[in-house]
Amino acid sequence: MEPIVRPRSVHQVTAVIGTGVVAPGALVASADDLGLTRGDGVFDAMRVLPRGDGWEAENLERHLRRFVRSAAAAELPEPDLGQWREAIAQAMAACDLEGEGVLKLVLTRGDDHGTDRTPLGFCTVSPLVPGARRPLAVTTLALGRPSNAFADAPWLLGGVKTLSYAVAMAAKREAARRGCDDALYVSTDGVALEATTAALLWVDHGVVCSTPSGTTGILESITLAVILDAMAETGTPTDRRLVRAEQLDAMTGAWLASSARGVCPIATLDGRRLPVDDGWTDRLASAAGF
Amino acid sequence: MEPIVRPRSVHQVTAVIGTGVVAPGALVASADDLGLTRGDGVFDAMRVLPRGDGWEAENLERHLRRFVRSAAAAELPEPDLGQWREAIAQAMAACDLEGEGVLKLVLTRGDDHGTDRTPLGFCTVSPLVPGARRPLAVTTLALGRPSNAFADAPWLLGGVKTLSYAVAMAAKREAARRGCDDALYVSTDGVALEATTAALLWVDHGVVCSTPSGTTGILESITLAVILDAMAETGTPTDRRLVRAEQLDAMTGAWLASSARGVCPIATLDGRRLPVDDGWTDRLASAAGF
Repeated sequence: MEPIVRPRSVHQVTAVIGTGVVAPGALVASADDLGLTRGDGVFDAMRVLPRGDGWEAENLERHLRRFVRSAAAAELPEPDLGQWREAIAQAMAACDLEGEGVLKLVLTRGDDHGTDRTPLGFCTVSPLVPGARRPLAVTTLALGRPSNAFADAPWLLGGVKTLSYAVAMAAKREAARRGCDDALYVSTDGVALEATTAALLWVDHGVVCSTPSGTTGILESITLAVILDAMAETGTPTDRRLVRAEQLDAMTGAWLASSARGVCPIATLDGRRLPVDDGWTDRLASAAGF
Repeated sequence: MEPIVRPRSVHQVTAVIGTGVVAPGALVASADDLGLTRGDGVFDAMRVLPRGDGWEAENLERHLRRFVRSAAAAELPEPDLGQWREAIAQAMAACDLEGEGVLKLVLTRGDDHGTDRTPLGFCTVSPLVPGARRPLAVTTLALGRPSNAFADAPWLLGGVKTLSYAVAMAAKREAARRGCDDALYVSTDGVALEATTAALLWVDHGVVCSTPSGTTGILESITLAVILDAMAETGTPTDRRLVRAEQLDAMTGAWLASSARGVCPIATLDGRRLPVDDGWTDRLASAAGF
């Protein structure tokens, strides 16, 4: 899933909790920050859209709730949402976007040494050039875990948006090496789980389906939740169920969904053509606000 | 494994590649650094010992070689060892240790945006108070992977010291919650793999054994390699083999080994007493330089 082309001149705005907006490119983390040295922290990210004279973060309340859940799962101090709303407002007021943007929230465990371990929190607003939100070439990649790997093992941080995304980044590079836009993780028992940074959904005989979170370790996608809510409102049946990667060939269609990149159909999976249903793509994307 | 007590007044020295030694507590990473936001980078760490009028990093060449291997596995630009040796020398010259220290090398993928993505590299020297290098209470924790999970899946970054250590940090917290010093990861097929930040070794009928790296995803421990080399020199048989966690009860002894914390016997595993053999402990620790 590579529909994003970063503009050459980047106008990223950063606001640090307790400090406010900092200079472009300013340094924010020490050499001792556990987010930097251990990937020990959590984040969340959402799309930013023009609204009136300014900007609005899409589904902000849902993303804040997930951010708080991630922090709790990682046993970080509970984010003070008043402070975070203030930092977000400061970053939004200072940002200089031409189209869409991405708001990212980052919370680390803070410095490893020292007498008080104060978490580092900051948010950034960056330009997002959606480019072609288009049919995707996807490769499956083994995740090396069974589909129930996260049962009774909270220390594995299943479903938690931690800062430890090195494997997702490596999987994206492997997908690119295979000429693909993104990778779909498959469990050792053959279940299609989620993409590196996007949820999987598919339509099976009129039912909008996605994989369950919980024991699978799959992240609770906000975009997916918004789609499933919208489907429920119109009486369209939905389900959370396991699917084998090769079963996707026989579905009405399959899509990857994320907050920044919308809902894109999977056109090929491991080189095999999957049905692309434009009507469903429009319906699902529209439900997600794209 | 918690034999380290950090002193209250910390004298950490940081040297940044291309910059040199920075002020204590100086910020080094931007809000856009992929090491900070994605745990996308690699590190290595080793003990620092007094040597003559100054300090020496133990097994530096081996650690540098592993650092280069980690960078290659993560597809980062190859570290310029000339630059790294210079930064290490600067940090060592500026450090103010009273006993032992830890030298840490960190390399991130650099800023996500911008026209050139220059990696961020820095090293730190921090005090290490060894405290009690003592028998350990260890709990097993499920890793949610079979013992061959990393076969043919280089994107899973098995054996690579990435900055994405959030699960190791969570496992350490879970161990502490259970009243233990460290956690020993166990695969879904019951194999004891490694501790959160230490290698596992055991003695079985006079053979010094450890778990194999490769398809298990276990990190190649430098301390372990040094021990196995020393054993080979004295004609003591060694082996790399799989072991089930419960089989450790019947061994002459079992130990956790790491560069900073030495070789500590496992006194209890999930509350069961394991044999502690002081003779072997002395011999293994001495072989590792402790």
